Amino acid sequence: MKALITGGAGFLGQRLARKLLATGTLKNASGQDERIERLVLLDVVPAPVIDDPRVDILTGDVLDAEFLKRAIDSATGSIFHLAAVVSSQAEADFDLGMRVNLDAARLLFETCRRLGHCPRVVFTSSVAVYGGDLPEVVQDDTALNPKSSYGIQKAIGELLLSDYSRRGFIDGRCLRLPTISVRPGKPNKAASSFASGIIREPLNNEGTVCPVTADTRLWLLSPRQAVDSLVFGHELGAEAFALNRVLNLPGVSVTVGEMVEVLGRISGQAAVGKIRWEGDPVVQRIVGSWPRSWDMTRAHALGFKGDKDFDSIVQAYIADDLSGAR
Amino acid sequence: MKALITGGAGFLGQRLARKLLATGTLKNASGQDERIERLVLLDVVPAPVIDDPRVDILTGDVLDAEFLKRAIDSATGSIFHLAAVVSSQAEADFDLGMRVNLDAARLLFETCRRLGHCPRVVFTSSVAVYGGDLPEVVQDDTALNPKSSYGIQKAIGELLLSDYSRRGFIDGRCLRLPTISVRPGKPNKAASSFASGIIREPLNNEGTVCPVTADTRLWLLSPRQAVDSLVFGHELGAEAFALNRVLNLPGVSVTVGEMVEVLGRISGQAAVGKIRWEGDPVVQRIVGSWPRSWDMTRAHALGFKGDKDFDSIVQAYIADDLSGAR
Repeated sequence: MKALITGGAGFLGQRLARKLLATGTLKNASGQDERIERLVLLDVVPAPVIDDPRVDILTGDVLDAEFLKRAIDSATGSIFHLAAVVSSQAEADFDLGMRVNLDAARLLFETCRRLGHCPRVVFTSSVAVYGGDLPEVVQDDTALNPKSSYGIQKAIGELLLSDYSRRGFIDGRCLRLPTISVRPGKPNKAASSFASGIIREPLNNEGTVCPVTADTRLWLLSPRQAVDSLVFGHELGAEAFALNRVLNLPGVSVTVGEMVEVLGRISGQAAVGKIRWEGDPVVQRIVGSWPRSWDMTRAHALGFKGDKDFDSIVQAYIADDLSGAR
Repeated sequence: MKALITGGAGFLGQRLARKLLATGTLKNASGQDERIERLVLLDVVPAPVIDDPRVDILTGDVLDAEFLKRAIDSATGSIFHLAAVVSSQAEADFDLGMRVNLDAARLLFETCRRLGHCPRVVFTSSVAVYGGDLPEVVQDDTALNPKSSYGIQKAIGELLLSDYSRRGFIDGRCLRLPTISVRPGKPNKAASSFASGIIREPLNNEGTVCPVTADTRLWLLSPRQAVDSLVFGHELGAEAFALNRVLNLPGVSVTVGEMVEVLGRISGQAAVGKIRWEGDPVVQRIVGSWPRSWDMTRAHALGFKGDKDFDSIVQAYIADDLSGAR
């Protein structure tokens, strides 16, 4: 079978690719392990070369229907749709966000529908679909009231995935990710970019800016757990999603102040001193509209795991991305 | 100023048109009454001629961007977007529903955005956006989990309206309507068509089929109150929708059995005998997934009114559509 990762050049896509290649199989519709013959990494920029004969790198526009038809065929049993325009970028460029976060998801689902073989599609959504007047712990039945274009677009993607699945066009599973921290690499245009930057940059002996107040509470997930959950969510049978195709993944609730305390404990006060506190009202407004935690009963019942605490999130970053060195 | 009604040939559009022509004004962005110079009735079929020099009838495809540009210009201060493909039809023809219920709404909002003058847009949504495991009384913060393509498409329209409003492209107000009963005219392809048919046909001495069980509970609104609420929702200042652009309108909760009892009281047992009970599992499933009632606190606080009870709904139908005669 063929598997496809959109956003395959991104850090999550890359990490997922390596995990899939290492495992070598994914479950098919009958629940049997099937060998991954080809793994297609699709992105608008070329994915880094992975030295594995199973990997195909496709570079192009996820909105180009002909291109997408080359990426998805009747042998494509599994799709991980990670391609997205991040929150601050979707806020700054409304049309770009609508095209990539909404139109591309729809085109991808529609491409599957035309093929008619109902592949498994794992789609990532976000804390940003929530907003407005939220309870301290968001419940599975809490209404979505997104306060960013990114959140609106992801919420629409969830609805489309649900209906395409209900109608049997795809076997979709939408996993709502907490804010990912600690992301490796460079800052990006996500409003939550700082949630990685305030740990990553000091650990790399670089300065960074924290645009929100220390009492801002975040709901976090490590890249390592995120990738494990994407695969776990793929491997579950469709009956796990019969009542609802959308699932809130487990997270860890911490304030920015607590995150910095952990940094200080692990790396010392000099690291903490690398953070310049400089409020950005736009980022504060967007991030402040997100859940500070949500109920994990359903995710735990299905067997999903989260991180233990923020300490272990930082340790996972050090182990996975700093080669164990500090 | 110009006002536009899409779905202007429909029964709700026609009734709204007559009300707007009688009133003659609509509030502008500053809250001042402004005279309606032109009232454009747009529909895919020609709207019935209304003998009033202010009325323009435009016949065409709401998905045709050039056509929509002729219907909406910088003088268009108010838009009532009622055009839709109804529930059973959207279930039977997925593509048609997606085009009319989703793409047309987006194109309309986008047309307004390009003009840049932020008109008031009243959009109608539905009980069908809810579904799944619902509380006995749906709350404002109850999550949407639609179990029909129509419900999914309306939920997406709500999200788009909310974001286009938040960004200042339109001043949108989305009113979620209970099931409209008693609709005049012929049965249509709404799953809820029977909710009018089981009253209307017997009152007109015609036979009809009830496809759901007598204990099926519905959440109803009369056409008269629906039209009043559309205008009322337009006339409110934008601050009424600051926290949430979507509002659940008041309804009346009755079982189908209770509706038939009211029919018997008003029109006698011969009328009741006109109903043939013949279950349709598709209709039962769709209608059974909808709320049986929802909380009305916010609507009442804003001044919206509902019907008193189902008796008065039937009396309103007799007065408005049977010319008072039975």
